[in-house]
Amino acid sequence: MLGSLVSSVQTTPAVESPEVQPDGKITFRLLDPNAKEVKLHFEGEKNPLPMMRDDAGVWSATLGPLDPDIYAYQFISDGVFLMDPSNSIIKPNLLQPQNLVRVGVATPQLWEVAEVPHGVVHHHLFKSTLIGDQRDFYVYTPPGFEPKAKKKYPVLYLLHGYSDDASAWTAVGMANAILDNLIAQGRVKPMIVVMPLGYGTMEMIRLKYPAWDNPELRQLNFGMFSKLLLTEVIPQVESAYPVSTKREDRAIAGLSMGGSESLLTGLKNIDKFAYVGAFSPGGLGEDYAIEFPGLDVTQASQLRVLWIACGTSDSLIAANRKLKSWLKSQSIGFTDIETPGAHTWMVWRRNLVSFAPLLFGGK
Amino acid sequence: MLGSLVSSVQTTPAVESPEVQPDGKITFRLLDPNAKEVKLHFEGEKNPLPMMRDDAGVWSATLGPLDPDIYAYQFISDGVFLMDPSNSIIKPNLLQPQNLVRVGVATPQLWEVAEVPHGVVHHHLFKSTLIGDQRDFYVYTPPGFEPKAKKKYPVLYLLHGYSDDASAWTAVGMANAILDNLIAQGRVKPMIVVMPLGYGTMEMIRLKYPAWDNPELRQLNFGMFSKLLLTEVIPQVESAYPVSTKREDRAIAGLSMGGSESLLTGLKNIDKFAYVGAFSPGGLGEDYAIEFPGLDVTQASQLRVLWIACGTSDSLIAANRKLKSWLKSQSIGFTDIETPGAHTWMVWRRNLVSFAPLLFGGK
Repeated sequence: MLGSLVSSVQTTPAVESPEVQPDGKITFRLLDPNAKEVKLHFEGEKNPLPMMRDDAGVWSATLGPLDPDIYAYQFISDGVFLMDPSNSIIKPNLLQPQNLVRVGVATPQLWEVAEVPHGVVHHHLFKSTLIGDQRDFYVYTPPGFEPKAKKKYPVLYLLHGYSDDASAWTAVGMANAILDNLIAQGRVKPMIVVMPLGYGTMEMIRLKYPAWDNPELRQLNFGMFSKLLLTEVIPQVESAYPVSTKREDRAIAGLSMGGSESLLTGLKNIDKFAYVGAFSPGGLGEDYAIEFPGLDVTQASQLRVLWIACGTSDSLIAANRKLKSWLKSQSIGFTDIETPGAHTWMVWRRNLVSFAPLLFGGK
Repeated sequence: MLGSLVSSVQTTPAVESPEVQPDGKITFRLLDPNAKEVKLHFEGEKNPLPMMRDDAGVWSATLGPLDPDIYAYQFISDGVFLMDPSNSIIKPNLLQPQNLVRVGVATPQLWEVAEVPHGVVHHHLFKSTLIGDQRDFYVYTPPGFEPKAKKKYPVLYLLHGYSDDASAWTAVGMANAILDNLIAQGRVKPMIVVMPLGYGTMEMIRLKYPAWDNPELRQLNFGMFSKLLLTEVIPQVESAYPVSTKREDRAIAGLSMGGSESLLTGLKNIDKFAYVGAFSPGGLGEDYAIEFPGLDVTQASQLRVLWIACGTSDSLIAANRKLKSWLKSQSIGFTDIETPGAHTWMVWRRNLVSFAPLLFGGK
């Protein structure tokens, strides 16, 4: 019974890609002999980068040295976005999956799986009666988790961005590794992290990118998601896990679309959440008094943390500064975080590293 | 704060692919204007299928009508295997990820998520002291699972094939949906299913496909995997979940490489397993007396089920028949399953549907 199955496996001719050098340089390669032009779409780069063809029809480009991180990329061959046939590490996404490449794994990074005790990530499916479709959420439980603990765990609801799926914060954001590492360092209190599918309506995905440019649909999406989270996801979590139901043990945070969902859900439900984090929030209307009715100093002072972050190269930085100006004009306090970087996971992983220790008495 | 992030999103020109018709026909399309030849690699088809180019540079092929199922595919553009840029549903794999397409989702299929109570899939990470690297396993717990149950659950160890990762049986094999559906029908007893990363050495992946053609490495891989399962995975499962440690409550099954691992581990440890299933097993040496030392009628009669399946179009069918002849020559009883189909997940999902009810008093 020899391995005859393999002789029938058909594969691409071997091209090494991506090739990561110890100094943080990366060379990308694509065999594409008949293409007229191949470019590299690299996370955080506004414009595609040129690639050069060699005589064998292999297109290549070398970037860096780059900082230790995890970067998403694709090739663009004569206008068509392609995954790298030589790289099996994939960034899941409902509209445009890409490949991932890691730099600097030889040195410890807070977002990489390390030799520390690990939590467990649990995947739940459910039928939403509110929305009428099949949905899912992931739950991180910390190392040493006790399912029948008398002392209830605090809980962070952590939301992904537009086009991501519910696996994004673990598969791309490495939230489980980040929590494991910060808990091991004593900087984060053991907590439960819940990562639900973040759409109030799946029309946001069925209609693809134009859905995001439709303000009515975006608003419907935000509203339905809040309702779904409060009336279906949170009750399921509280029935399946020993989580505290006190507001001072509940946080909500997210990136981009999920950042706005965190602000909208958190600031309208200060009786339910004491911590709100928005990483590069996007898609809010700019009449903030309408977006956040009734929000005032008295309300907001009940928050232990209101944390708003954005990369200074993010195209949303101006909109985020507007939001922050409005909060200031209302004398509403918040932590104002601006970091280098664009609308990327390199920014959001670091946001989580900075935000998680602020919760529930971490340090 | 309008949706300016989306106007900067760069996307492939819209091409619909795959387009599934209600009658089960599928049309695949790839915009690839400068390619000389594009073909379709479709799960279960021995040879790539031709695609035709239109004036706009879109290559297409229509298959079917096909039976309701989930099929993997890729495009081959001038010899290079490409993912479908229009399809975000991906079959994870450590050597060659592909796209998935579903036919017949409008009618209930046992491998699709249905409106029945759902179990939960738990993802565990650990450092192997035996092998020295980071590893993972997934655990399915059935609907209504009680983490502190006094009555212990029976447990199936379910192993993937060569080049798959630990997520294969849930992400591609839909094992959680299959178990949910069969439990809802009363055909399968609530059980725990453990799906570990199935390599005894990751050289099997680092060296790519040639590793599988190396009999010494394959044998090392089988031996180390058995040891890993017995000394590291099973103890962790038994400490984290209320699983029975009786042999009559333990099963092992797998596909291809995992089928051989199930035979090698199960038949050499009849004191630990009462059920063994091999779906299209591959990679065993053909001197079975050496592969299974000490296996005889007395030993084998302690098994409640020894179940060996293979598709009649599988290139491994001859080798599987040889193994079965040897078992017969030793008067060792087994259930002999030959079904239509090749070395594909269409076969293995159906294998699990047939095998799971045979375990632990199902029907």
